[in-house]
Amino acid sequence: MVHEPNNWGRFGPDDQRGTLNLLSPSAVLAALGAATTGEVLSLALPIRGATSSPAPTTVPHLRDRPLPQHFMSVDGGDYAAGARPIGEGLRVADDALVVTPHGTTTHMDALCHMWSGDQVYNGHPAARVRSYGAGRCGIEQVGGVVARGVLFDVPRRLGLDHLPAGHRIPAAALAEIAEPRPGDVAVIRTGWPRVWERSREEYWSGQPGLSAEAGRWLAARDVAVVAADNAAVGGLNARGTADESLADDLHLILLHRHGIHLIEMLWLEELAATGRTEFVFVAAPLRIEGGTASPLTPLAIL
Amino acid sequence: MVHEPNNWGRFGPDDQRGTLNLLSPSAVLAALGAATTGEVLSLALPIRGATSSPAPTTVPHLRDRPLPQHFMSVDGGDYAAGARPIGEGLRVADDALVVTPHGTTTHMDALCHMWSGDQVYNGHPAARVRSYGAGRCGIEQVGGVVARGVLFDVPRRLGLDHLPAGHRIPAAALAEIAEPRPGDVAVIRTGWPRVWERSREEYWSGQPGLSAEAGRWLAARDVAVVAADNAAVGGLNARGTADESLADDLHLILLHRHGIHLIEMLWLEELAATGRTEFVFVAAPLRIEGGTASPLTPLAIL
Amino acid sequence: MVHEPNNWGRFGPDDQRGTLNLLSPSAVLAALGAATTGEVLSLALPIRGATSSPAPTTVPHLRDRPLPQHFMSVDGGDYAAGARPIGEGLRVADDALVVTPHGTTTHMDALCHMWSGDQVYNGHPAARVRSYGAGRCGIEQVGGVVARGVLFDVPRRLGLDHLPAGHRIPAAALAEIAEPRPGDVAVIRTGWPRVWERSREEYWSGQPGLSAEAGRWLAARDVAVVAADNAAVGGLNARGTADESLADDLHLILLHRHGIHLIEMLWLEELAATGRTEFVFVAAPLRIEGGTASPLTPLAIL
Amino acid sequence: MVHEPNNWGRFGPDDQRGTLNLLSPSAVLAALGAATTGEVLSLALPIRGATSSPAPTTVPHLRDRPLPQHFMSVDGGDYAAGARPIGEGLRVADDALVVTPHGTTTHMDALCHMWSGDQVYNGHPAARVRSYGAGRCGIEQVGGVVARGVLFDVPRRLGLDHLPAGHRIPAAALAEIAEPRPGDVAVIRTGWPRVWERSREEYWSGQPGLSAEAGRWLAARDVAVVAADNAAVGGLNARGTADESLADDLHLILLHRHGIHLIEMLWLEELAATGRTEFVFVAAPLRIEGGTASPLTPLAIL
Repeated sequence: MVHEPNNWGRFGPDDQRGTLNLLSPSAVLAALGAATTGEVLSLALPIRGATSSPAPTTVPHLRDRPLPQHFMSVDGGDYAAGARPIGEGLRVADDALVVTPHGTTTHMDALCHMWSGDQVYNGHPAARVRSYGAGRCGIEQVGGVVARGVLFDVPRRLGLDHLPAGHRIPAAALAEIAEPRPGDVAVIRTGWPRVWERSREEYWSGQPGLSAEAGRWLAARDVAVVAADNAAVGGLNARGTADESLADDLHLILLHRHGIHLIEMLWLEELAATGRTEFVFVAAPLRIEGGTASPLTPLAIL
Repeated sequence: MVHEPNNWGRFGPDDQRGTLNLLSPSAVLAALGAATTGEVLSLALPIRGATSSPAPTTVPHLRDRPLPQHFMSVDGGDYAAGARPIGEGLRVADDALVVTPHGTTTHMDALCHMWSGDQVYNGHPAARVRSYGAGRCGIEQVGGVVARGVLFDVPRRLGLDHLPAGHRIPAAALAEIAEPRPGDVAVIRTGWPRVWERSREEYWSGQPGLSAEAGRWLAARDVAVVAADNAAVGGLNARGTADESLADDLHLILLHRHGIHLIEMLWLEELAATGRTEFVFVAAPLRIEGGTASPLTPLAIL
Repeated sequence: MVHEPNNWGRFGPDDQRGTLNLLSPSAVLAALGAATTGEVLSLALPIRGATSSPAPTTVPHLRDRPLPQHFMSVDGGDYAAGARPIGEGLRVADDALVVTPHGTTTHMDALCHMWSGDQVYNGHPAARVRSYGAGRCGIEQVGGVVARGVLFDVPRRLGLDHLPAGHRIPAAALAEIAEPRPGDVAVIRTGWPRVWERSREEYWSGQPGLSAEAGRWLAARDVAVVAADNAAVGGLNARGTADESLADDLHLILLHRHGIHLIEMLWLEELAATGRTEFVFVAAPLRIEGGTASPLTPLAIL
Repeated sequence: MVHEPNNWGRFGPDDQRGTLNLLSPSAVLAALGAATTGEVLSLALPIRGATSSPAPTTVPHLRDRPLPQHFMSVDGGDYAAGARPIGEGLRVADDALVVTPHGTTTHMDALCHMWSGDQVYNGHPAARVRSYGAGRCGIEQVGGVVARGVLFDVPRRLGLDHLPAGHRIPAAALAEIAEPRPGDVAVIRTGWPRVWERSREEYWSGQPGLSAEAGRWLAARDVAVVAADNAAVGGLNARGTADESLADDLHLILLHRHGIHLIEMLWLEELAATGRTEFVFVAAPLRIEGGTASPLTPLAIL
């Protein structure tokens, strides 16, 4: 049967207004000063989406999530098989992606992603987050992040390859490494993605992450984004959930109460190997209207 | 039935190697100098993916393409209807995206996207571009673009709101506006997305774009990327295809012969309104292994 | 982040219980007696899902719906391009389908598909129809339909190729053709799919369908299913919606108030050409748990 | 960029011609005689597609396959959250399905699904099986199956709940149970889906199935379809692949060499419990043009 038109208007210049850049222009200019060598590193996991083989399972992800699927709608094989080129001989490859970002690949959480009670961030009614997308606090509200990144390489500080699954990073461990400034992106390395190479069962046995105290410490310093290489910024137990109470839940502390965006499932190994702790951090989510998250490729400009 | 494991290896640090940043570190550093005010603008169209209503059709796209679909797998409506929160009261919204980027949203073409003969860019065999993804020249090869952007606002120069559908921009029109340097991102404004507001039929009646001569002029200047607000960098006729011969096809000139990446379907209206012609251009495609393109949100740092 | 397990139990024999066959065993046996020649006809439109071309738009559908997408994850082209076969030489083609059945292809509506107020069919709370699927009245509740089909070929009766868009079939027109028995499938031919061949704009200009009075007449005769070749059983206006009031809405009369399942977008041309008015009608929806509909291929056994 | 129209023609009556019913009309009529009580049983596994939870993993499937995803694009939760109904008060639930049938749910294989050398069934060139779909031997060629079903309940004969993983059913075991007639659907019960309830790891440890000799025995009796409750008709090893040589591969024997369609991943427990060995078997795949398979719900009419 037939449904009502939704109430998003027609597309026009207004659609482009009101997106939120997380820093003021002067802070952006200052952040660019953190680039000293100009080397650019990708901080994203690959999206490995072959669909009739175990391939996607070879990239770190949470257990039992719908993994990315990648399809070619026309490819070189078709021409090898005799497909007629376009016009005089133009050949093309085209594709499609099916992706559920949470838990499956590097992504940024929108402010509508998690809450308690009846309101998402800043008192917006959770009832506006519906099947058509989040009418409040969707990921399209974030225009882009251009900020100073500060790497908190906690395992390196402790002389470890990676933190153990049960480790909850205390605020003091962060404070020993650096004092972030307002508007910084705090980049938290746990090293946990390295575990995947050894064993996916071990990867799924739990995950290290920030303690609630450390989350509050970062929020008090007014960072713009907390970005981590684990799956949930906070730690996980063997069931893949958080053990914290509502008061201490890392998503609620950062995303819900302070409006601090989260980026999860980063790949930080090359960045850590450089020894650099300050750099320019750039990330721009897809403008998915009403999205709860976006897959993305954050960059570190060293 | 049961299929062979594909021959992508297990995930590990090697997966992160070999991605191509389109500029050298020193060029990146120089490009950052183009930022003067620190204002950040998104250059992406919204991804409007509601799926049981005409909504997605309200954003510019080519005719008869599979439009983005966006689904919430849990949302605020479910809690309003009585869904049990997690644990003590955590609530969550989660979603999925189905996207075919070519012709439907702002995206970057991979070097495997178009060719003639049996080889994609740089002599790689087109036969390696298969259903599992492009084994050569996939979009995951592009780590990120951090470069100087130069805006070629052609309709402004001509005193028009937008170029007419049949207009093919000559090289001289670009040369009058600016002389790009090697490694620049040439950002071409046609103004055509403004037509969508008036009439989608008019939007589909053809599209203005670069002439072959202008494409060669940009290639000769060794730009890193050509980024445009039309759908195909070159122009389109009323059937949605290009009229150029193989020798003059813009995709073949830029992508296939010179390895110059293309970004299409930009939204440049706010950028144009600022009057700025030089800025930092940052773009980072999703790391879709073997992808022919990626949706993305390019940023202009003014 | 991490979500609660849903409350669907583990899979087991209980999952197979409680599905509803729309007729009693003795009625099924009687219905099989309607087969006289044994010819079998498919009553489904093709699902034409190529994804980088206008192909899907060549099959009748409602305007601006997300059309089916069909992807090959491995195919003969890959082997032509040199893909290694499995083991000694086994080759395989595999695929995936993305489908939103309402308005795009032949499908059966579940009882949860449409309602007014706060309750779906039979007083079940509409609040149980959530993002995880319909917890009440989902399409998986229908095991299968094996019944006598009765064809109401209204345009043939009127000497027309198809009914005009504004036509609303009166009860008397049905009564002149046949008197259905309880448990029959009433198959309504409007001929409207033939219009698609002439012009999709004309197909979208409105659609003929049952009048409310005819819907009540069928409900009073206790048919098991109403199956039609138009998109909504009732008629549509040029905006693709129904003009009836809530009291007279065909979906509400049949699906919501009487629990009569609907099958829409049938292809009835070959069946009509046989001149047969009674036959065995068989249809079995996919067992999509919590689905609002299922694409399917109904069969007529003549 | 822009692609060529494919060479599927416009939709019309010809699209409906040439579909293959697997039996002659007289054989269909004879098959209907196998119904004695009129009870109708669904033989399909549920499609459990919730997407942000482990739900789909609770239904039997092969390891590491892309599982079905089911999304609601509007649902009762949206209305509970305040969504505006249509017109005077019509409310609607709508959804979408993403499905890769092989290895994930009850499905029918098309004749293009597996081959060796360069030709699919009956000498059709495998090179016509491309990204746009199979140009030869796609699942849309099968109009419907209405035939006598004969149940071969092998574990019951052996006094077992299910066959062990390593068991390959010999021809003699089938011959002891029944002698199928040309055009019958041979329904093979291994009982293996019952193992899933105990342990999915055990389900994945291998699977019992037909021996090559039994496959040849069925082919020699000219059955129309072989339908089984395991994943591949033949057996599987712990890697999820077949151990047979090309000469003895069950898919090649049945599908490739004899054009016998396969239906896999049936749920046969209720049917087996009835003790009935003959019945009417009805199945109708979705008319996916160029599809390698279709999910479906086969029915047994007892």
